[in-house]
Amino acid sequence: MSTTADPPGVRLCWTGEDRVHDGVRRRRFDVEREGRTVPGLLWTPAGEAAPAPTRLGTAAPGGPTGPSGTPLVLVGHGGSGHKGQDYVASLARRLVRQGIAAAAIDGPVHGDRRAEDEAPPGLVLLEFAQVWADDGEAMTDAMVADWRAALDVLQALPELGASPVGWWGLSLGTILGLPLVAAEPRIEAAVLGLMGLTGPTRERIARDAAAVTCPVLFLLQWDDMLFPRDDALALFDALATPDKRLHAHPGSHGAVPDEGFEASAAFLAARLGGRGTAPR
Amino acid sequence: MSTTADPPGVRLCWTGEDRVHDGVRRRRFDVEREGRTVPGLLWTPAGEAAPAPTRLGTAAPGGPTGPSGTPLVLVGHGGSGHKGQDYVASLARRLVRQGIAAAAIDGPVHGDRRAEDEAPPGLVLLEFAQVWADDGEAMTDAMVADWRAALDVLQALPELGASPVGWWGLSLGTILGLPLVAAEPRIEAAVLGLMGLTGPTRERIARDAAAVTCPVLFLLQWDDMLFPRDDALALFDALATPDKRLHAHPGSHGAVPDEGFEASAAFLAARLGGRGTAPR
Repeated sequence: MSTTADPPGVRLCWTGEDRVHDGVRRRRFDVEREGRTVPGLLWTPAGEAAPAPTRLGTAAPGGPTGPSGTPLVLVGHGGSGHKGQDYVASLARRLVRQGIAAAAIDGPVHGDRRAEDEAPPGLVLLEFAQVWADDGEAMTDAMVADWRAALDVLQALPELGASPVGWWGLSLGTILGLPLVAAEPRIEAAVLGLMGLTGPTRERIARDAAAVTCPVLFLLQWDDMLFPRDDALALFDALATPDKRLHAHPGSHGAVPDEGFEASAAFLAARLGGRGTAPR
Repeated sequence: MSTTADPPGVRLCWTGEDRVHDGVRRRRFDVEREGRTVPGLLWTPAGEAAPAPTRLGTAAPGGPTGPSGTPLVLVGHGGSGHKGQDYVASLARRLVRQGIAAAAIDGPVHGDRRAEDEAPPGLVLLEFAQVWADDGEAMTDAMVADWRAALDVLQALPELGASPVGWWGLSLGTILGLPLVAAEPRIEAAVLGLMGLTGPTRERIARDAAAVTCPVLFLLQWDDMLFPRDDALALFDALATPDKRLHAHPGSHGAVPDEGFEASAAFLAARLGGRGTAPR
């Protein structure tokens, strides 16, 4: 839990939670920057060199310092979920088995950013919707900065270093992740989707879509009632990168089939240099 | 070139062309049924038992007679193309390397169904458009019957037998192939696309889409000017099977990227029991 101060950069603090299961190591961390604490999880192959249990990485923003190591995918969770929710953890473990590390942080008013231990999902969604409507631009900017700070400190870890970085985030993970993909040149490939050109930050998202230049896999649920099909197709259309593909599956917003996760992992592994398709 | 008469069924006649290249055997055949001659090509693994060079298969319609063998994918070529055009042959060879046989026949007014050796593609398209407009239903019915006859005789071959059958056909290969997929219960998986709810047989296609029950991969080109995006999305929507997915890529009608062919082969291999992804 302890760290040493290291202004003006950002600090990575291990909180002590460090588990290994089935070849995958999961560690809980906090990123501290400018008075903010950003709670996160890191999944890596269990065989990697184990860092000491206190402060391990310090980096100036934007400056990876380690040698090139394991590729890293940043994973954005869904609305009312959190950094450790089932599908995030499942995807992270799948990526690790393909030789790719994964990291997730809690979004605004989500997970360990809240005071209470287990808030009702409906309450979390309502509070998020309020912030999105009242000050969506500032919330987006803060989340992008949180992710960039997390990436800085994670890339300072010896087992990661300045290795290729990818993004995976659907729904809320696209609302807050597409702006990160647009802003962060270290991200070399992104999985986005379950979101459209809609909502309080619609113009911001359109602007950022026009700035995305890396390869993108866009996932769409054909019968999505939350973010309608036409809005999602418009967002895919707006992505500036010529290296994009859309995979649509039948079903509602939350019913992404395993095929979508499998395609995600294969896409990221192919672009970032993982070990290709591995058994789940 | 010789055959023996065998009414009332259909006859498979080998025309003598029989080549092996890079582990793939390609044979030219004709299917004869009710006075029609349907020219085709069959690609199989070169190591399979070699049939005699004359008549090899005779079957009553709908009745596979051999034991279960190598899975078979029926491939529909594109408008103005033919059964041996580059992408058909390339896909066939890819399938064979994954342990799946492939067969293609010429469509109406295409390939060896024409008197001249090499007709200008524009002329072929014009003639096809005329037949499609004048008597699209009858043309569709005849092509479906040609394919079913071809399937009957191919499944009588000892190296194929009553093994799982798939369909792959885009554009013209969906115009004439979707009705086959709807009509033929032996087809267990289909790749369709580059076509929409449009054209002279629009109502037929809509009716048949509502009868498709097997797993489908639908390929769409995002900037298709020939069959516009909205019509193609409507056709995907109309497919009755719940086991469907749409993959869209940027580019014009004819610009399907290799990724689309790779996904096709992986999808068919997974559904028909091929050897999975193999090097191209």
